[in-house]
Amino acid sequence: TYVRGIHTVTLIPGDGIGPEISSAVMKIFEAAKAPIQWEERNVTAIKGPGGKWMIPPDAKESMDRNKIGLKGPLKTPIAAGHPSMNLLLRKTFDLYANVRPCVSIEGYKTPYTDVNLVTIRENTEGEYSGIEHVIVDGVVQSIKLITEQASQRIAEYAFEYARNNQRASVTAVHKANIMRMSDGLFLRKCREVAEKHKDVKFTEMYLDTVCLNMVQDPTQFDVLVMPNLYGDILSDLCAGLIGGLGVTPSGNIGANGVAIFESVHGTAPDIAGKDMANPTALLLSAVMMLRHMGLHGHAKKIEAACFDIIRDKKVLTKDLGGNSKCSEFTEAICQRVLDLD
Amino acid sequence: TYVRGIHTVTLIPGDGIGPEISSAVMKIFEAAKAPIQWEERNVTAIKGPGGKWMIPPDAKESMDRNKIGLKGPLKTPIAAGHPSMNLLLRKTFDLYANVRPCVSIEGYKTPYTDVNLVTIRENTEGEYSGIEHVIVDGVVQSIKLITEQASQRIAEYAFEYARNNQRASVTAVHKANIMRMSDGLFLRKCREVAEKHKDVKFTEMYLDTVCLNMVQDPTQFDVLVMPNLYGDILSDLCAGLIGGLGVTPSGNIGANGVAIFESVHGTAPDIAGKDMANPTALLLSAVMMLRHMGLHGHAKKIEAACFDIIRDKKVLTKDLGGNSKCSEFTEAICQRVLDLD
Ligand SMILES: CC(C)[C@H](C(=O)O)[C@@H](O)C(=O)O
Ligand SMILES: CC(C)[C@H](C(=O)O)[C@@H](O)C(=O)O
Repeated sequence: TYVRGIHTVTLIPGDGIGPEISSAVMKIFEAAKAPIQWEERNVTAIKGPGGKWMIPPDAKESMDRNKIGLKGPLKTPIAAGHPSMNLLLRKTFDLYANVRPCVSIEGYKTPYTDVNLVTIRENTEGEYSGIEHVIVDGVVQSIKLITEQASQRIAEYAFEYARNNQRASVTAVHKANIMRMSDGLFLRKCREVAEKHKDVKFTEMYLDTVCLNMVQDPTQFDVLVMPNLYGDILSDLCAGLIGGLGVTPSGNIGANGVAIFESVHGTAPDIAGKDMANPTALLLSAVMMLRHMGLHGHAKKIEAACFDIIRDKKVLTKDLGGNSKCSEFTEAICQRVLDLD
Repeated sequence: TYVRGIHTVTLIPGDGIGPEISSAVMKIFEAAKAPIQWEERNVTAIKGPGGKWMIPPDAKESMDRNKIGLKGPLKTPIAAGHPSMNLLLRKTFDLYANVRPCVSIEGYKTPYTDVNLVTIRENTEGEYSGIEHVIVDGVVQSIKLITEQASQRIAEYAFEYARNNQRASVTAVHKANIMRMSDGLFLRKCREVAEKHKDVKFTEMYLDTVCLNMVQDPTQFDVLVMPNLYGDILSDLCAGLIGGLGVTPSGNIGANGVAIFESVHGTAPDIAGKDMANPTALLLSAVMMLRHMGLHGHAKKIEAACFDIIRDKKVLTKDLGGNSKCSEFTEAICQRVLDLD
């Protein structure tokens, strides 16, 4: 359904360096003749009827219509009760799976090489339920909520992702030795779904063991699936292995075909507007988006161009170890895209 | 109180390789003339009156009297309802602080050098409360319990540890952006205690950010204090940075002067009894114990001997990259202890 014609994507440039890196991505997409038309929207929450925070109707409508979004970093306004914009977007569009491929980038040195794994995080429940109480003075409880439905949905997503992306194994990450009922339910659902996907190897592992093994040898991992908080932790840890949030793409997959791809780094207000930002994370997120849409040829070309320029080390932004501007780095990638044609 | 005379310590050799590595430690302590007398006890849980699992009375009595214990790895029997031995010990002696110094070992290569940090984990509550319910079919909740008292106690321990061990800073690790009330309470207590320890720098950081920064540059961290589950994760992650559980010491500090020091690796049944085990983690835990008792001279000498032998690379057990037996490695350390005299 996606492969032919021009596709409209909702673009949420975001705050701080968001607009600069978004326009870098647009330029590179143009050079690559990617069949994407952008529809720009601002998602900063407003107070709706009844005082509830919500994203503006025209942004919601755009996403509902286009299904696919690309989003730069957002700052959360410090108004009383203002929700995290990230959480609000996850909720508004029921973005139940956060997917982060962490792949070592040739030429960008970190303590690790050959990392090639994907974290898949349940994005809607668990420790993020927001239900907390004071029991008596000085005693507080937070509730972690795990449901059969959400566990099954994320497990199915993980196995289908593995199959569609030629990945050999899925590891369920849990602490069911401690949280026997909640993580136990999550794990049981993973096992059941694994039974239906015999072509993909299934293993299970304690979260603490995964962390230990991960820093010793990340190459042993492939696809990892886990509840919300564990995913929050592991996805950042794994991003660190390959160079940090400045080079790590991310996608949020929702029900009914909706998906938002995003760079997960901050708005970097200190360098905003100075043509110094690194657009790599947003660009690679946009490449994930192309793959999600079935546009594999364009995805491959843009990704190759980006990796080539990083490997060459001639034109790099400051955070990548160079002294070029965002616009120069972008231009180099555009040129490389044309060379690859 | 500890410094003069002979001190009796409860020794829990444990299962699998436990007895071998325990006797290695005893030999090295003897060579170093450490003023320690060992009182051996078995802690494997038994069913007490009313069917409750408990550690045997003579082990409990020994610990209550001696206050200090050294413990090898324990296997948890697979009897229905048998509790994790680790959890049972933490509970029985109210071992509220798990302390793990992670220090790079010269000559033992990992992707990192100059790691020198300590994780301090709240060991009694949080996600380990064990309270879980089925709400309706397919919906489960686990309760994370945070109390003012336990948060204050661990925060105080962390700052006192920092002061007593010449450490410059304490970082509180949390997710109070998500668990506003529970992690919020933990964080508030850390802040209050920090106010009373102006000589130690205090910072706070999200758990996900800590994980990301940790794998990028662990040398930026010093003392880290955190709730139970985060400590479970981070302490294993940090052990991975310096070479794994085979070389990482651990101490569990309780109320009323009680403390149990332990290696946190497994019982390694496959090599048990074959004179192949690596006693380093238990030995370094015993060194922590000596420091805790104020026996700094003996601690320093034994630690130096162990590190010297690892740096020399001539006599190493298999897991450390050599082909010597446990007894040969132990003998080399003993010899080095005598040379250092
Ligand atoms: C900003 C915050 C609410 C968020 C989270 O904890 O999920 C962030 O860490 C993330 O991973 O997107
Ligand atoms: C064995 C298990 C109960 C334990 C835990 O989760 O605390 C272990 O991982 C640890 O860190 O001591």
